[in-house]
Amino acid sequence: MVKSVISSKDNKKIKDYRKLNTTKGRKKSGLFLIEGEHLVEEAIKHGVNFEEIIISEGFDHDLELSNKALMYVTEEVMKSLSSLETPPGIIAIVKNVKERKLSYNRVLLLENIQDPGNLGTLIRTADAFGFKTIIVSPDTVDPYNPKVLRAAQGSHFHLNILTRQVSEAVMAFKGLKIGTSLDDAVYIDSFNKPDDDIMLVLGNEGSGLREDTLNMMDINAKIDMVGDSESLNVAIAGAILMHHFKS
Amino acid sequence: MVKSVISSKDNKKIKDYRKLNTTKGRKKSGLFLIEGEHLVEEAIKHGVNFEEIIISEGFDHDLELSNKALMYVTEEVMKSLSSLETPPGIIAIVKNVKERKLSYNRVLLLENIQDPGNLGTLIRTADAFGFKTIIVSPDTVDPYNPKVLRAAQGSHFHLNILTRQVSEAVMAFKGLKIGTSLDDAVYIDSFNKPDDDIMLVLGNEGSGLREDTLNMMDINAKIDMVGDSESLNVAIAGAILMHHFKS
Repeated sequence: MVKSVISSKDNKKIKDYRKLNTTKGRKKSGLFLIEGEHLVEEAIKHGVNFEEIIISEGFDHDLELSNKALMYVTEEVMKSLSSLETPPGIIAIVKNVKERKLSYNRVLLLENIQDPGNLGTLIRTADAFGFKTIIVSPDTVDPYNPKVLRAAQGSHFHLNILTRQVSEAVMAFKGLKIGTSLDDAVYIDSFNKPDDDIMLVLGNEGSGLREDTLNMMDINAKIDMVGDSESLNVAIAGAILMHHFKS
Repeated sequence: MVKSVISSKDNKKIKDYRKLNTTKGRKKSGLFLIEGEHLVEEAIKHGVNFEEIIISEGFDHDLELSNKALMYVTEEVMKSLSSLETPPGIIAIVKNVKERKLSYNRVLLLENIQDPGNLGTLIRTADAFGFKTIIVSPDTVDPYNPKVLRAAQGSHFHLNILTRQVSEAVMAFKGLKIGTSLDDAVYIDSFNKPDDDIMLVLGNEGSGLREDTLNMMDINAKIDMVGDSESLNVAIAGAILMHHFKS
């Protein structure tokens, strides 16, 4: 079988797919792009709907791709699509992940998180500790940004990730709302895990949670630090808290 | 007072300082470079020895810089020195941090960590939980890489960071050596904090600890995961373990 290989970066589809590296392009099309064999494998395993799978000519892999729309491209075209310095051999175009049955047992609510690595790591960690519903504020970095997807290592396909106004999300939640602030807070080491459903709420890297949001919390939790560092990275603080409050 | 402003990227000193963005350049000169007002402030607070401080013309700051060698440069020259997309207004050239009195109460040993963000975050977190001595293997990313320094947010100036062969470091340590492996490991939730000095040992992002290193451990610790994620990022796992085993 002769397969044709696309060698032009100006190919109409390639140009359209390249737009998926921007928030605007993803919003407009309802598609996003995942890079590399590991993420594509995770997506296949979780029955994600693919628009198309793009493969560098000569790329060897062990993926089961029958019944999928495939497109072969030159390495140069692959490089033009990829956000990585060393482009992967495979990229998949994914139709937005369908919402799964919502679980409110453990909810992670994120307000104005700006760093894609932090958001991706929080998503991966939430997946590890059973926080199956993640709600992000509209001013948080787009969860389908390629860097977020990479840091999350496929956890997007196991979870519900919703965008909501923070105040709406907090008001709609019936369980215990745990904020994170260093003022008026309880050390987690002296804070037994409650029986209630839990919503854990984390804020911006530089400024933390907004005053309005803190005022809606049932309690604030903080982490006992013994050393000289003034603060923890938000993904680190979130991980220690999610581990403590896991279901 | 008239101050002269360097406007040429080919200025001899600027060319030399630019080399500090490479591991080789740092090793050869015994200097490293820190970017931005926050890191420079932390360095001043901890009595670090500065070679020179470089400031963009027109940059406003609140730092106390009397008795320091200052150099003013154009924004273009600053951009040529910086590793950031948006260059900072200030960069300091620092003489290697002096070793402080070594503490063996809590030691973090890192084997072949490759991602600068992970290493920097581990250093920042170690500082928060009283792991005052950090030992990195020779094949770990350079702790004085600008991205590591940025993620660590000044914690380099509170800690001892040493480079040693892993086997030597482990053999020289007298307390309890805790490895991290999913095999033959004890869940930390059922593992009370020992009275001994502790060395916590973390391995490479993809492959974990080497077999030889695992064989030298007293015990392996693992983290209880309840969700669908297969693994945690190394900086996240390290943080949960350091929080659990803090002094």
